Amino acid sequence: MKRKIENFWRKYFLSLDENFYEIEPSEIMPEKVFIASGHIKNFVDTIVICKKCKADFRADHLVEEKTKESAEHLTDKQLTKKIRELKIRCPKCGGELGGVNYLNLMFPLKIGSNDKGYLRPETAQGCYVAFKRMFGATREKLPLGLAIIGKAFRNEISPRQGTYRMREFTQAELQIFFDPDKINECESFEEVENYKLKVKFSDQKRVDEIPCKKLLYKLPKFYVYYLAKVQQFYLDLLKIKPENFRFRELSKDERAFYNKYHFDVELFTPRFDNFKEIGGVHYRTDYDLKRHEKISGENLHITIDNKKFIPHVLELSFGIDRNFYSLLELSFSNKILKLNPKVAPFTIGIFPLVNRDNLYEKGDELYKELKKEFDCFFDSSGSIGRRYARADEIGTLYCITIDYKTLEDNTVTIRDRDSTKQVRIKISELGDIVEKLVDMEITFEDIGKIVKTRKKKEGYRI
Amino acid sequence: MKRKIENFWRKYFLSLDENFYEIEPSEIMPEKVFIASGHIKNFVDTIVICKKCKADFRADHLVEEKTKESAEHLTDKQLTKKIRELKIRCPKCGGELGGVNYLNLMFPLKIGSNDKGYLRPETAQGCYVAFKRMFGATREKLPLGLAIIGKAFRNEISPRQGTYRMREFTQAELQIFFDPDKINECESFEEVENYKLKVKFSDQKRVDEIPCKKLLYKLPKFYVYYLAKVQQFYLDLLKIKPENFRFRELSKDERAFYNKYHFDVELFTPRFDNFKEIGGVHYRTDYDLKRHEKISGENLHITIDNKKFIPHVLELSFGIDRNFYSLLELSFSNKILKLNPKVAPFTIGIFPLVNRDNLYEKGDELYKELKKEFDCFFDSSGSIGRRYARADEIGTLYCITIDYKTLEDNTVTIRDRDSTKQVRIKISELGDIVEKLVDMEITFEDIGKIVKTRKKKEGYRI
Repeated sequence: MKRKIENFWRKYFLSLDENFYEIEPSEIMPEKVFIASGHIKNFVDTIVICKKCKADFRADHLVEEKTKESAEHLTDKQLTKKIRELKIRCPKCGGELGGVNYLNLMFPLKIGSNDKGYLRPETAQGCYVAFKRMFGATREKLPLGLAIIGKAFRNEISPRQGTYRMREFTQAELQIFFDPDKINECESFEEVENYKLKVKFSDQKRVDEIPCKKLLYKLPKFYVYYLAKVQQFYLDLLKIKPENFRFRELSKDERAFYNKYHFDVELFTPRFDNFKEIGGVHYRTDYDLKRHEKISGENLHITIDNKKFIPHVLELSFGIDRNFYSLLELSFSNKILKLNPKVAPFTIGIFPLVNRDNLYEKGDELYKELKKEFDCFFDSSGSIGRRYARADEIGTLYCITIDYKTLEDNTVTIRDRDSTKQVRIKISELGDIVEKLVDMEITFEDIGKIVKTRKKKEGYRI
Repeated sequence: MKRKIENFWRKYFLSLDENFYEIEPSEIMPEKVFIASGHIKNFVDTIVICKKCKADFRADHLVEEKTKESAEHLTDKQLTKKIRELKIRCPKCGGELGGVNYLNLMFPLKIGSNDKGYLRPETAQGCYVAFKRMFGATREKLPLGLAIIGKAFRNEISPRQGTYRMREFTQAELQIFFDPDKINECESFEEVENYKLKVKFSDQKRVDEIPCKKLLYKLPKFYVYYLAKVQQFYLDLLKIKPENFRFRELSKDERAFYNKYHFDVELFTPRFDNFKEIGGVHYRTDYDLKRHEKISGENLHITIDNKKFIPHVLELSFGIDRNFYSLLELSFSNKILKLNPKVAPFTIGIFPLVNRDNLYEKGDELYKELKKEFDCFFDSSGSIGRRYARADEIGTLYCITIDYKTLEDNTVTIRDRDSTKQVRIKISELGDIVEKLVDMEITFEDIGKIVKTRKKKEGYRI
């Protein structure tokens, strides 16, 4: 299922522009990259140690738990003061806490016998370092999009909340390099101009639904277009209910200083009874390329139409593991996992009605045929009802039952996960019909019609 | 292209048995795992340092370069002696070399603030650690296959030979857990009993072609079956020429002491003018699970039909980067990259004959339609001949040309990479035909026939 989400993301986001590509730089990168990116200096968490039991904690989290307000932007000194003011003590032993310090979140490594490197804490830097070469290799056009789907690593002081804060996690990130003079140009903007975005501005409590064109008074066209494309990915393709999706603008305090615009992508997550960040749309300006130019000494200016400049970057960033978890939770109700056909773990379950009279063998034969093309499983144990229930729980889209009629006329019943409706079709049509269902070219209701029409033609009595 | 190789491998190897699954454990693993696996103690290279210039080298490689014989199995003391005997001096400055020492190849890490861990040097251990849980989750059946496609890390002293010795690389590995009492049972062995394997035994210089059933006198059925499946993957699916493929049996000196049978998968690689290891089929016995049971204290015995035992492991292991490189080199000749349709980077190139009279727009429209389903590119610069040549070089399977006739009757020419033959077909048939070609359901020659038949039916003059 995780691979399917990755493939689904890849197909959608890489096809947004013909000049978007996936690359795979290494996960270990030399120290210089992170001096340039600012991670060596800024990528730190605030840590506080109990004077008594020596346990360590995230200082901002301790303050947040007490105040129920974000404390991520506070400095070490401010946090130390807050901890004293709020009289926060060690959650483990109740002992007195020490002063707040910074701890870098990257994993350091020795490369070979002498060079210093780090495991990347985000995938983005790989794209910035590769930009100049990729720009040359793709015939020097902008916008140029470079995507990475891969691991990132953060030595979290306290990993927690399941897939939400892990030391090793999978990111899918797309860096779009563009000409800043053209930030208000966007060829395909018409497609989305009346499309309503669900946005919570940093200075407001409510979520507004605003047509894209009405956002242009405060956000550039190029940026709004990609907000729309992100929302469409969740609402139209992954079928997330609109009330569970929103963009949240980060206030100046919350966002990185180099991000001119920063909206988090948030999904409502029942487990936390709250919206949780599962991605972000960041306008990073020319900060990264400028820094890499300075530290590496490599000229990262490009020339297009006699204009020499450093491209700006729009970053679309997604946490695959968080999306994975949110999708599971938002799709599961009444013991049915209603996942989109493209990300559901299994497309087909195959069940012989009983395990005798050749029904088992017939089912096994069909299973071996269908699994060449679809993700299938074969289940012959327990009652049919129990098998349906098991299939529903893991999101299986269609259940095929082999019964005595199958042996007579090579037809099977196909059952729809979401409606639990069933219809009898020919085995010879099965592959074609399921393919069309998964591609959402037809609905399950259409099958009934197709079968009726065919039967009429063939002179069946209906 | 790398993603396509991974997907191709996944689809093929996971469908060899209905009880094979892909899992994704973490790349960072705790120290205990590698104490159990023996990596802490044994996963070392021999290093020698120049007394004068302080440069470091792999001791066995220096000896191999001099003797042209494998030196990988020699101990530190044996290598020190060899270096003295052969009077090997520093390749950089000619200075005297010091004694040979061992250097562990794993990247150590500090997890959190206190725990020790390592980046995994192979993916296999993730499967062994997960075995018991996965066995329970998949209804306790054997054989059980657990596959990992992911990164592995080795702090090589001297990375070299391009993708053949990298510090960070991608492995695709399948661990098959089975009952050792059933090693001579294999349900589907009939399929391959007469299939000839290309095998070089460790005590012979020549490569033999031996039917699977004739190998049973020295190798178990279960093992031979998977050798056959690996060879079929390369010869039948990836279309590697038989003369470029072989299994090479490793001698007792060369193979790990816990491998009872060990054949490397080798492809001839023109760049090295030699066969190179790109994978391996290892019968690891119960070594790994036994060690993990001992070190972790977790009971890894299972019970099936009242028999309590530790499963044995057959490992199919492949280096994706090495396969990637070998495939590129073996597929490229006469400036054409003849890759298998499933791994070629592009399926379709779309070329408007000229950039005026609406041909460009027509081509762009077709491009936008086709790219929903296929990997396509659009190229409108240079002569058609030049564009064909560019497309051939990157392995593009089919080139579609939009010309003046297209505007009249919605037909295009489609050109086959391998035969350079062309045929004119309707745009409405295009998607369907290309899909069948890629799935190898029809050949390019068949299109001519299909078109002829259709034209006859429709009363065309041919």
